Amino acid sequence: MTYCVATKVQDGLVFLSDSRTNAGIDQVSTFRKTTLFQREGECVVVLMSAGNLAITQSVQEILRTAPEESSVLSAGNMFEAASRVGAAVREVYARDDEVFKAMGIDFNCSFILGGQIKGEGCRLFHIYAAGNFIEAQAESPYFQIGEAKYGKPILDRVIEPETSLDDAVKCALISMDSTLKSNISVGLPLDLLVYQVNDLSVKYHVSIAEDDPYFMAVRSGWSERIREAFQTMPPINLESRRYSSAS
Amino acid sequence: MTYCVATKVQDGLVFLSDSRTNAGIDQVSTFRKTTLFQREGECVVVLMSAGNLAITQSVQEILRTAPEESSVLSAGNMFEAASRVGAAVREVYARDDEVFKAMGIDFNCSFILGGQIKGEGCRLFHIYAAGNFIEAQAESPYFQIGEAKYGKPILDRVIEPETSLDDAVKCALISMDSTLKSNISVGLPLDLLVYQVNDLSVKYHVSIAEDDPYFMAVRSGWSERIREAFQTMPPINLESRRYSSAS
Repeated sequence: MTYCVATKVQDGLVFLSDSRTNAGIDQVSTFRKTTLFQREGECVVVLMSAGNLAITQSVQEILRTAPEESSVLSAGNMFEAASRVGAAVREVYARDDEVFKAMGIDFNCSFILGGQIKGEGCRLFHIYAAGNFIEAQAESPYFQIGEAKYGKPILDRVIEPETSLDDAVKCALISMDSTLKSNISVGLPLDLLVYQVNDLSVKYHVSIAEDDPYFMAVRSGWSERIREAFQTMPPINLESRRYSSAS
Repeated sequence: MTYCVATKVQDGLVFLSDSRTNAGIDQVSTFRKTTLFQREGECVVVLMSAGNLAITQSVQEILRTAPEESSVLSAGNMFEAASRVGAAVREVYARDDEVFKAMGIDFNCSFILGGQIKGEGCRLFHIYAAGNFIEAQAESPYFQIGEAKYGKPILDRVIEPETSLDDAVKCALISMDSTLKSNISVGLPLDLLVYQVNDLSVKYHVSIAEDDPYFMAVRSGWSERIREAFQTMPPINLESRRYSSAS
């Protein structure tokens, strides 16, 4: 399994992904799920992927080796870049579909694409297995792929367009922590990439391992605060609710 | 969709379920998912159900109309009661299987069964569509069925055998709130049933509607505390992490 989350705030974009893949519980490996395409001063395009690793690696390979005219790096805008990723997904689908159908394998993949191309602001897309895609808006400023549910409540409560980049990073790490806690098929190290709007170059792209002091502080600090928050919530008065027949 | 959660602590059992069912987004109804079987002074058996409503109602009907010798009320212990629920599930499967297979319908159902029968302590079971089941233990003191993921992190952080009944109720309501917030196919009113060990009778079984003052306080209070907790977490120092090439 995989968990990737990306948020778009006024100050830029935050991308966080885990690195665990598994094909059955006895075949667990580490693969990075975040790929950066960059031409300094011109464009920064970040791709995150979830699903069947053979599919997503094929898509990455097509994009990586694309001739200039169909590369995401030469796209005139992010919508076009998303279309090019979608086209790569459809190319893999055309190649694999027949065999997959015969063997009962799902064509399972999804992508988050975000970045900035000179001439427009930051944009963030969610690309489906069909190669079509949707774009994040102010009311829906984040996307998740993979094991999304455990880490969704904190995003829903915190992320807004006005959220600072620091807070968006903190929120993504808490969201990841909730996912790591509840699903053992999501695992460290994490890839964190932070893009500041109009930089047209990535300054923060780090790997976060088990022993990262900040992530350790997030993990223990958040558990502690959740328990404290829980304790300060008023108790229910059960005595006032003696049997009142709900059924 | 549905969300049901039940926790087993030393002081007793807590059951909480929503009441929304849907067959397509334009066919949403309210159905209670918690059924109580009780013989005061002898046994309290609570059944919660998720999945295909036609299946789960059939199972309830079989249990409700069962002759004395195969009723959950006459089971010698909770394991036997769980076996009888499993047998009812298999009876429905035998009836529906052929048509379901022909029409491509999944035999989709799951149940939580908990309670106490005189002569033993409280016990809690998760019963699958195959009619087989597992029992909660000290290390895994709760079960969820239906839309379980959004509400799991708070349970993982709080529930232990030593947790008080009041706290277990509070935790279940917070878990439900996270689910309601993230999945519109889970809806009010809620059924809350609290069983105190050795009572052999249910004293607290209430319906919680939109305007319930305590649940309203939980909902707004929890969101507020999560945001406060988030704000008190230390910020990441991005400057100290300038590009260190994760890829």
